[in-house]
Order: sequence, then C-alpha cells, then structure tokens
Amino acid sequence: MRLLIINPNTSENFTKSIQLAADAVKSPNTEVVCINPSAGPRSIESVYDELLSSGPCLELMISNRNKFDGFVIACYGHHPVITAAREMLHQPVIGIMEASLTLACLVGQKFSIITSEERAISLFEEGVRLYGLESRCASIRSTGTAVLALEGQNKNDVENLMLRESRKAIEQDGAEVISLGCAGMAGLDKRLSSELGVPVVDGVPAAVKLLEGLFSCGIQTSKQRAYSRLDMKEIVNLPAIFSEPYNQD
Amino acid sequence: MRLLIINPNTSENFTKSIQLAADAVKSPNTEVVCINPSAGPRSIESVYDELLSSGPCLELMISNRNKFDGFVIACYGHHPVITAAREMLHQPVIGIMEASLTLACLVGQKFSIITSEERAISLFEEGVRLYGLESRCASIRSTGTAVLALEGQNKNDVENLMLRESRKAIEQDGAEVISLGCAGMAGLDKRLSSELGVPVVDGVPAAVKLLEGLFSCGIQTSKQRAYSRLDMKEIVNLPAIFSEPYNQD
Amino acid sequence: MRLLIINPNTSENFTKSIQLAADAVKSPNTEVVCINPSAGPRSIESVYDELLSSGPCLELMISNRNKFDGFVIACYGHHPVITAAREMLHQPVIGIMEASLTLACLVGQKFSIITSEERAISLFEEGVRLYGLESRCASIRSTGTAVLALEGQNKNDVENLMLRESRKAIEQDGAEVISLGCAGMAGLDKRLSSELGVPVVDGVPAAVKLLEGLFSCGIQTSKQRAYSRLDMKEIVNLPAIFSEPYNQD
Amino acid sequence: MRLLIINPNTSENFTKSIQLAADAVKSPNTEVVCINPSAGPRSIESVYDELLSSGPCLELMISNRNKFDGFVIACYGHHPVITAAREMLHQPVIGIMEASLTLACLVGQKFSIITSEERAISLFEEGVRLYGLESRCASIRSTGTAVLALEGQNKNDVENLMLRESRKAIEQDGAEVISLGCAGMAGLDKRLSSELGVPVVDGVPAAVKLLEGLFSCGIQTSKQRAYSRLDMKEIVNLPAIFSEPYNQD
Amino acid sequence: MRLLIINPNTSENFTKSIQLAADAVKSPNTEVVCINPSAGPRSIESVYDELLSSGPCLELMISNRNKFDGFVIACYGHHPVITAAREMLHQPVIGIMEASLTLACLVGQKFSIITSEERAISLFEEGVRLYGLESRCASIRSTGTAVLALEGQNKNDVENLMLRESRKAIEQDGAEVISLGCAGMAGLDKRLSSELGVPVVDGVPAAVKLLEGLFSCGIQTSKQRAYSRLDMKEIVNLPAIFSEPYNQD
Amino acid sequence: MRLLIINPNTSENFTKSIQLAADAVKSPNTEVVCINPSAGPRSIESVYDELLSSGPCLELMISNRNKFDGFVIACYGHHPVITAAREMLHQPVIGIMEASLTLACLVGQKFSIITSEERAISLFEEGVRLYGLESRCASIRSTGTAVLALEGQNKNDVENLMLRESRKAIEQDGAEVISLGCAGMAGLDKRLSSELGVPVVDGVPAAVKLLEGLFSCGIQTSKQRAYSRLDMKEIVNLPAIFSEPYNQD
Repeated sequence: MRLLIINPNTSENFTKSIQLAADAVKSPNTEVVCINPSAGPRSIESVYDELLSSGPCLELMISNRNKFDGFVIACYGHHPVITAAREMLHQPVIGIMEASLTLACLVGQKFSIITSEERAISLFEEGVRLYGLESRCASIRSTGTAVLALEGQNKNDVENLMLRESRKAIEQDGAEVISLGCAGMAGLDKRLSSELGVPVVDGVPAAVKLLEGLFSCGIQTSKQRAYSRLDMKEIVNLPAIFSEPYNQD
Repeated sequence: MRLLIINPNTSENFTKSIQLAADAVKSPNTEVVCINPSAGPRSIESVYDELLSSGPCLELMISNRNKFDGFVIACYGHHPVITAAREMLHQPVIGIMEASLTLACLVGQKFSIITSEERAISLFEEGVRLYGLESRCASIRSTGTAVLALEGQNKNDVENLMLRESRKAIEQDGAEVISLGCAGMAGLDKRLSSELGVPVVDGVPAAVKLLEGLFSCGIQTSKQRAYSRLDMKEIVNLPAIFSEPYNQD
Repeated sequence: MRLLIINPNTSENFTKSIQLAADAVKSPNTEVVCINPSAGPRSIESVYDELLSSGPCLELMISNRNKFDGFVIACYGHHPVITAAREMLHQPVIGIMEASLTLACLVGQKFSIITSEERAISLFEEGVRLYGLESRCASIRSTGTAVLALEGQNKNDVENLMLRESRKAIEQDGAEVISLGCAGMAGLDKRLSSELGVPVVDGVPAAVKLLEGLFSCGIQTSKQRAYSRLDMKEIVNLPAIFSEPYNQD
Repeated sequence: MRLLIINPNTSENFTKSIQLAADAVKSPNTEVVCINPSAGPRSIESVYDELLSSGPCLELMISNRNKFDGFVIACYGHHPVITAAREMLHQPVIGIMEASLTLACLVGQKFSIITSEERAISLFEEGVRLYGLESRCASIRSTGTAVLALEGQNKNDVENLMLRESRKAIEQDGAEVISLGCAGMAGLDKRLSSELGVPVVDGVPAAVKLLEGLFSCGIQTSKQRAYSRLDMKEIVNLPAIFSEPYNQD
Repeated sequence: MRLLIINPNTSENFTKSIQLAADAVKSPNTEVVCINPSAGPRSIESVYDELLSSGPCLELMISNRNKFDGFVIACYGHHPVITAAREMLHQPVIGIMEASLTLACLVGQKFSIITSEERAISLFEEGVRLYGLESRCASIRSTGTAVLALEGQNKNDVENLMLRESRKAIEQDGAEVISLGCAGMAGLDKRLSSELGVPVVDGVPAAVKLLEGLFSCGIQTSKQRAYSRLDMKEIVNLPAIFSEPYNQD
Repeated sequence: MRLLIINPNTSENFTKSIQLAADAVKSPNTEVVCINPSAGPRSIESVYDELLSSGPCLELMISNRNKFDGFVIACYGHHPVITAAREMLHQPVIGIMEASLTLACLVGQKFSIITSEERAISLFEEGVRLYGLESRCASIRSTGTAVLALEGQNKNDVENLMLRESRKAIEQDGAEVISLGCAGMAGLDKRLSSELGVPVVDGVPAAVKLLEGLFSCGIQTSKQRAYSRLDMKEIVNLPAIFSEPYNQD
C-alpha cells in the first residue's frame, strides 16, 4: 500500500524525523511518503497555527488524493484537516494524537500525554474529550518548552524534561502509558520507554500501523453521516483546486 | 460599543439578513457592522467548508482587530475561527451556536436544534459535547434541505419544514426551547415562536446581546491558558498580514 | 424594561451593594429594583437557610409578578426559588450563579468559583453538575470565612484571602476565569480582575445584562415541560397569596 | 428503633397508605410513625409545591428531632427538605426516590420510573442526575394523570395506566425493574410485580428497610462537608422554632 | 430468612471475621451461614485471582442455590461471580463493594475507599464506573500492604495506616464517608469511625441488611434482560454440577 | 511474529472460521495459531458462560505464554480473561470487541454493534462503558438468535437478519460503521459491507492487525498499576499450573 504522511508545519527537520520513524515500522510492501507544505507556520501550537496550515495542507491532500491508500496528519492534536480529509476521501485518514492514544489504550488503563508547550494542554483536553477518553486520561503535562526547541541543540535537555514530567505522570497521576504529545518527538519512544519502564507511544509509527491494518481489513472511511461526501458547491475567489473535492463521485 | 459580525460564507443575502436581525436588538449606542469575506464557499455545511472560509475570515478579523469591541462569527457550529480569534484578541468573541444555546439554557431545561443539512447534525453533536451541554440537548434535527435553499423562493416551504421538525422535537424528544441551527434562518425566530408556543432562539441577536453584556461588565477574553497570547513565530510563504497576530502585546 | 432583584437573605447591606452593582451596568432605559424579604436568615449558606428564605421570597415574587419584566435571585447557588419562579412566571428568571458561569464560559475554557464558606463547596458542586458544566469547572475554593464577614470591617482581609485562593485556582487548578461565589462580593470584580490579570465575573451585573438580552430578543421562559404552568391545586392553612400562582392563565 | 415518616403533602389518605406500606415490612422492634403537616399543598408536583411544603415539614422535623432514630421524607423526588434535614440531624434521613432507586439497582441493571404527572419527569431527571444514575435509568414515564387521582375511585384505571406504561418501559426502553414514582402509589408494588413479571420497588418500604439497616450498622449522617452542622445564625421574623437547628451541638 | 455469605478466597480467618461481622447486625430471625471454597487463592487482589476463585465459588453457589433466600459475595470489588450468580438465581445477590457504597451514599455526598493493595485501586475504579458513582467518589487510596497482612500480628499497624489514609481522604480529597475496601477489614468500622468522626461503612454488615431489606420487600432479581435465565446449553468436559444452572425453571 | 488466538468456547467450527479470518489479513511473516480449550461451554452468551470458560482458557494461556508475541481472546465482549492475561504477561493481549471498536472509531463518528443473543446487549453496554465509548455508540442491536445458530444451515437467514438490524442501526440510530458482535460472525464483514455501503468491522482481523502494529512499534503491556505483575501467592487445591503466573519475573 502507499501512505502519505503530511507534516502540516513547514519544518523540514520534523518531516525528516517523521519519515524515519515511519520507515522504521512499515511493512515491506508499504511505501511511505512524508511531505510538508511549502507555506504555513514553522510549528503548530494553537488553533490559529492550525488554521494557517490548513489551506496548504488541503492543497497537498487534494492533489495527492488519488495516489495513496491512506493518509496521516502528523500533528499531535485534533487538527481540523483530519476531519476535512475524511469528508473528501474514501481512504482512511488518521491523526497522530488519535493513533497514539488508540494504541496506548490497548496496553494500559490510563495514559498521560507529555507535550512541550503549556498552551497545548487545553487543545489536547478538547481532543481527549472528543474521543471520549476522559476516563482513560491520567493527565496532560507539558515541559514548558517551545515546540521548535525540539529541533535544536538542546535535545538532551528536552529529553530530560520529558523524563521528569513522565515520572511525575507515572508516580503522581497514575499513568501507565506515556503518549508523546508532539510530532517533533518522533523517534524518542524507545529511549524514553527503556528509561521509564512503561510503554511510550509515538503517534507516527502508531498511525502507519493502524492504516496498514485498516487497509488489510479492507476498511475505508464511512460515507454515512459525519464524513459523507461533499455535495457540489460554488466557491468564490479561491484557487480552482479547492473545488475538486466537491466534484468527486 | 462597536461590534463586528463576520458572516464567514460568501452569501451576501445572508449577510444582509444577519445585519437586520442584529440591528433589531442592539442597544441605541451600539454600532453593528456585518460583513462577509470576498472569498470562500457560498455556504458552510462541513469542516471542509469551514476551513475554506477560515483564511478569508482571519484576514478580516486581523485587519479589523483594533476597530471593534467585540466580534461575532455568524456561522452555526463550533467554527474554528472562533477559537483562533479568541487566541489573537483581548476583546470577546462569540459564535452564534454558543450564543443561541447559552440563552436557550436560561429559559428551559432542554433545547433542540433545528438545522437544514443532515450532515450538520454530526458537527453540532460535537459542539454540544464541547460545551458540556449533552444533558441539556433533547435532540438535533434537520429539515433535510441545503442551506442555500434558505435564500431562495421556497422560504415558505422551509418554514413549514422547520415547524414540522420543531413540533417533533417538542412532542417526541422533550424539547422546551428551539435553537435555530443556521445563520440563514436569522429573523425567523418570532414567527416560529408564536406558531410553536415555545421560545425560539436565533443566535445572531443572542450574540449581540451577550457581547453588549460582556462589554458593560468589562469582561474580556482570558489570556490565561487556552486563549493565551500568540508568541512570536516564523511563518513561510503566507501573506504578511497573518504574521500580525504574533506581534501583539 | 423593569427588573426585580430579590436578595433572598435579610442583610440590607448586601441589598444595597447588589443595587449598586446592578445600576452600574444596566442600560439607560432599564429600571432595577433590588429588595430583600423582611423575614428569614441573615445569610444563606446551607439548604436549610435556602428553605427558610423561600417562603418570604416567594411572597415577594408573587406580589410583584405582574410589575416586572425579569427577575434575579441574588443568591449564589441553585436556590430552589429560581425553579419555582420559572414555574409560576412567563418572564425570565435568573440566579446569579448561573449568570456568572454563563458569562465566564464565553471568555475562557475553565472557571473556578471562589466562595467564602467551606460548606458552600458541596452546594456549588451540585449546581455545576446540574448545569452540565463539570468539564468547564477547574475548581471550587473557599476562603474559609463566614458570609457575613463580607459585611464587616475586615473587608480588606477578605479581599486578600480571595486573591490568595484565586491565585491558587489559576496557578494550580488551571482556572482562566474567576466567578465570585457570593452575592456579598458584589462590586469586587473590577479590583480583583486588575490584580489577577484574568476576568472576574460578578453574577449580579451578569444577570442584569442577560435579562436585558432575553428581553430585547423577546425570549420568555418556556411553558413546555419543566417549567409548565401550575395547575389549580388546593392548599391548606397557608396565606392566601400562595394560591395565586395556581390561578394564572 | 423509632422511625418518623413525614408525608410532606396534606393528604391524609396518602399518609394512611404510607403507614400501612411501612408497617407491612418493618422489623418487630421498629416503631414507625407516619404523619403529615397540617399546612401545605394537597399534593406535590412541582418545585413550587415542594417549597410550600418545606416550612411545615421542617417544623415537624425540628420538633421531633430528638424522638426518632431515622427519618423518611415520603415524597418521590429530590425534595429539598431531605438535604436540610441531613444538615440539621445526626440521624439518617432518606427520601423515597433515593430509597427506591437504591434497591432497584441491586436487582437489575436498568430501572424505569413510572409516575403520574407529566411535569414530574423533569424533576426526576434532575434527581437521577444528582444521584449519578443516568447510566442505570432506562426511562421515566408518566401516566398523564394528576397525583390526586390516585386517591379517588378510579384506582383501577390508574393501575391499568401504570401497567401500560410499565410494559412500554420493559419492552421498548429496556427496563428490568420498575420504580413506583409517587408516594400515592404505596402498596401497589406486589400486584404490579406479579402482573409484569419484574421487580416493582415501592420507595416507602425500601426507605424503612434502609434506615433499619443503617441503624443496625451504627451508621449516621456524616457531619463532614456537605451535611456539616449548622453554625449559629441570626434569623429575622420567623417562628422561634426555626432557630433551634442552629443551636445544636 | 436464610443468607449465605461466600468468602471467595480460602482464608478461613477471613471467613470467621466475616461471620462475626454479619452476626452482629442480622435480625433475630435471619440465619447467616458464612463459608469459603476449599480451593483457590488465599486472597484476591487481581482479576487473575478473581478467576481462580470463580469455579470453586460457583460450585458452592450452585449446590446451595435452593437453600438460601439471599447471597453475599464477600470480596470487595466487582467480582464476576456476582453477575453470574444473578444470572442463575431468582434470589438477590450482593457484593460487599456495592453494598458498602450503597449505604455510604445515603449518609454523605462523597465517599473514599481505603484498601490495602495498590493494584486494587484500578479494579475499584472500574467498579465505581460501572455503578455510575464517579461523581460521588472522592478518592480511592491504599495503605500499600498486602491483603493477607490483615490476618497477621501487625493488625495495629494496619489500623494506623488506615487511619492515616482515611484522614488524607477526608482532609485532602473531600471524603465525608469511608468505605472499608477489603473483606479482611470486617469488624474495624466502629473503631475507625469513632477515631475519624465520620461514618465508616463495612460492606459485610451492609450486605446483610440490604438483603434483609430486599427480602422483607419481596424483591427478587429481575429476570428481564441483563440477568435473564440461562437457556439450556451444552458444556464439555466440566463437572456435571456446572450444567445445573442451565436447567432451572 | 507469532500470535495465539484463543477461541474461549469449545466450538471447533468457530475456531476454524476464526483461523481463516485471521490468515486472510496477517502479514507474511506473522504466524497465527488459533485454538480452543477442550473444556467449557459450546458458546458464550452470559457472564456465567464466561466464567466456565475462564479456567480452561487460562490454562491454555499459561502453557503458551512463552511461545507467542501476542494474544487474542476471540470472544466478543469484555471477557475477564483479557484482563487476567494482561496481568500475567508482558506481551500485548486484545479482545475482539475492543479491537473491532478501536478500528471502527477511526473511520466513523458512531458505530453500532449487531449481535445475536438479546442478553448480550447488556454485556456489551458494560464493555462500551468501560472503554469510555458511550458517546461513540449509536446502538447495540441483536438479531434475537442463539449464537450457535451461526454454525448451522440457516446461515443465510442469519445474514438476512443481520442486514435488517444493520439497516435499522444506520437509518434509525445514526450508525456510520457496523461492528460484528460475535466471533461466530467472522468472515461476514466483506459481504455485509458491500450490501450496506458502510464499513463493517470484524474483530478477528482487527485484533491481528492491532497486535502486529503493537509488535512493530515495540509496545508491550504496561506493568505499572492496573496490569502490574502478580506477586507470589499461595493457592490451594488447584492444578499446579495456576501457580506459574505468580512466579514470573
């Protein structure tokens, strides 16, 4: 099968580490392509950032919509492009927050999310609530660092902060599994897990394996109700590509 | 005070009827300006539509951000621009779904939402869940017509369909109050209410009065946590105006 | 429009400060009358207190029921007279807890309630649960002082205690907005807000503006189901005035 | 032990049938006294009715507070006197709705409440929500008759209506147990149960047995937090008896 | 009436103390027999332990099913034999966790469970969730000791640990009532209650009194839906006794 | 990797069709072994059935615990052996209900479960509640046939009943995805899906792919809290094999 992973921010460093994390787990006959839009914010830490990234991401999604069997939106959180993509496509679409929490719930009763930016906590609370996982969420904690710090030299420091917050989650909040709350953390799961002694779930490999699973089972996005196909509609003063999803059959 | 209402779709007919509905309830010393973006979909019935409208709406929001004391996003649903606007502004911002349900909850135990498009039901369920109002929601019903039908000749038919669904909501689902589930229904509240014998809440006037109330009480959007100010960030290949919210103090 | 605010306890000091807080925000053509019953407890801190105040409050409500366009029960909590008044009246009725939390939810994701008496915490938990706002409530904290201390000399001390608890709510519990959890705190909102840097919502002005809003929108209490009109009923050995609500049409 | 059952309405017919239902199940060494106030509404079907009955009930409660080991408020619903009584007493206090649902939950996964008045449905929904039993409640149905019809000749008709609604609850709503939703139905449980083939729980005997159980186990009302003792307080222009609960130690 | 209490572990010391706790509260004309299976784990602290105890407990249940009017499973937690017994019997069946929390909820708004083993916390969270009592549960705390320590010399130490955790529950978590979270704690309720000043509920006496109550009221387990009778079914290579429940009428 | 699927009932027909369904989706380098115990009930439709199957299943689990990298309990429902296996193993363990609902939630907002036996509805409600998926569950419907009918000639009839109930779920209840609520339905997913036009999720292939995914990601069951390792414990009069899980390191 062919998978497209869209890193919705414009950090190519992140795109590369996401590609690596995906390649490490994919099945031999799966091809994974990871790209990012050429326009948009360098990192995504607010709904405003999500919206700035949405137009460029949707363009990528539309122009690639017939070339892949499944799609990953590699931004931790309930990025609105996930839902929009489900509306426009028959193929399955997954975000890495949903993917990470989905696997986490299979190996423990309670998970904690460790993220970087403080403000992301509110965003993720909303996501947890939408997925109906309030009773499974022990806590959401942040290291208090900006997302882009994950790119820089002080990766060691960030890891230490993550270990510190993860330990608090385990010892004080009752977490049994840790969900890595940022695409920029892709690749850290193994090392953190062996330090902490609990499973640490990276949403990127989780999403790849879930899409492979859906594909093997022949399961596509339901076109009933929530994600039903987009009826023909007039749009004004927008690039023509944005009309295409309305024309699908 | 000065209020800006943004109708996020590009239907000027809707913009006009929203302006009328707002003017009918505003206080004498409130000035209400209602506009719509010049680009985007003609109506909003999916998350995809919401995202197509987001860029143009954000531009309007940014360029007007110092000229108004409060903002309304006149699209029924939890349109993501509402949250983004709260992140970028100190002034209060309200969507008409939240406004309508807020007033509905003050005059009855249970409300029903009557909307046009079937697919909107899923979107509104998500909104109700995010506001925490599941236990107050008797039902969400649709007339099964496209939003833009509300513009056309068959307004009478639409009204009859709405009366039919509202009566089912009252008699079968236990609704005590009806929330008009589409900005295109602005202005129908009085007539439907007198037919049905229960309060019918239009989100446009509701939003105007709630913003006037917040203004009089001196209450602005909290900059703590969820809607905290947007830190400086690099964006790539987007119009310069989108950098402005990051520069605010 | 004409609004009646009933302070259900017998503290005239509270009645005066409530009147001041209401007058400060009302629209020019709104008339606000604030009264308290001549019988009952000096403050309300338990369900027992609520019930002692109910008879006298209902008498005031009944005798004024044709003279006003809206009613406020100025006691923080889900005072049972609020529901009884909605049953007997077509005009809207609001309690100040509901009013305060309603506005708080428009400017932040999470609120905390700061009250005086420890025992009120249980009462308010029940109110929050009835309104369906559990997921929006960061915490309910008390200063550990009696309500009537708010009348006395040590107002400064009380304010300091409130600042201390509010800061804990913001820093430890994740509150973004503070709701003043006692009618006796009316008038403190501005000062606390400027100290704390987050919105502080006083339920008295909030209720005044919400009633003005409902009035402008022509929205009255639903007579369907929960607050349906009171059918004729025989009562025994009670003052005749209490029969009047059963006779309404 | 000595139990006082207060029927909070002024229907002596109801008081008698409650006494009979209680005597039929009490242990040999339990003494049950069932009384009703001499003032108040003839039946209780609204919060307004509850409040009219509260003063007279509290007087009975206060004057008898040292003479009994447990108290029942024999009104189906979350009558506010239940909470007030728990605040003023060390002895346990139970309402018949809580008692009925408590036993119902021990013999089935899902219960339905069958009541008489349509408007009671809203009241009972609130009670179910406060007890946290939403997930156990299959439905609340009414026969659409006034409570006092239960006193009259057409008892047979009422029983038939109850059978009809109970069968709908069992067949359509998934009820496994029926809770009799009105004190006026006391004594019907056995007959309905043998007709329906499912347990039917009358709250009056349920409350008697639960109080006997608490008494045998030496369990009294907690004086921590929610029902903590009432501190000394000044009341104005009310009968002196209402000051007594504040003076307890 | 005749009650059978099954202690599902093989600790005879526990069986004896359970018998004592039950005899201390039973009515004069109730006969209580407390037994334990001759096979299985010495204590129950995991689902694995629960399952090892299930076969032997079911055998006891089946062979005694016509000799008793009610059954107690004296293991704190939602032991699966409780549900299985309800499926096979008309008589009521109660577990001591459900019994304890049922009485606790009648005398306080919030309870805490104090147990011994840390791992039991997860099990009890699941039970609380199934009973729908999340909003009534202040906390679940453990003393960090193995269950069987409750048998040994250091009973004093265990009591001190329980007092310490109970005080934290009351002072930090808002508990108003303590539920003894282990059958091995039977008999400690009075002493702990007098030390702590709040009700302490032991599930064993609670279950005895609840069964007496159900019996007096003539309430049996519903055979509708969840606990409906077991249809004839073939089983393979299991002792013949396990076929008997399928043959009942 | 090597996967063991345990069909916990003793129907070899089911075991064979489960093996087929698993083989159809497994990756080339996955080996799947599907077995059933030689003792126990022929089908599982109650908690009693679950418990009869538990001993034999645990024996299989224990004797195979070092030979496989992941385990499936192929019984729809929250079979208690799933939790017990997680306690005793480091390798991941999945039940087919959890697996099916996990994939269903990725391709639609709302699922319905279609099962055979009426009584299973209650069991599955409990499972849905434990997974926290109440808000995602449109309905649980049964065809009203015994599980073993799925083995027999009238497979066509069963399929027709399933289509009928699935259509009701889609049209009346709002289902977007169908979850096959019985292991005996393994293999029907494709045919039903093409008839219904919505995804139909069979838990057997879903579980296989989820375990492959967890394995590829290196994620094992958390040994923190809920599924922590089983401390040494004495058992009495049970086969020695049941002591082995206590001895693991």
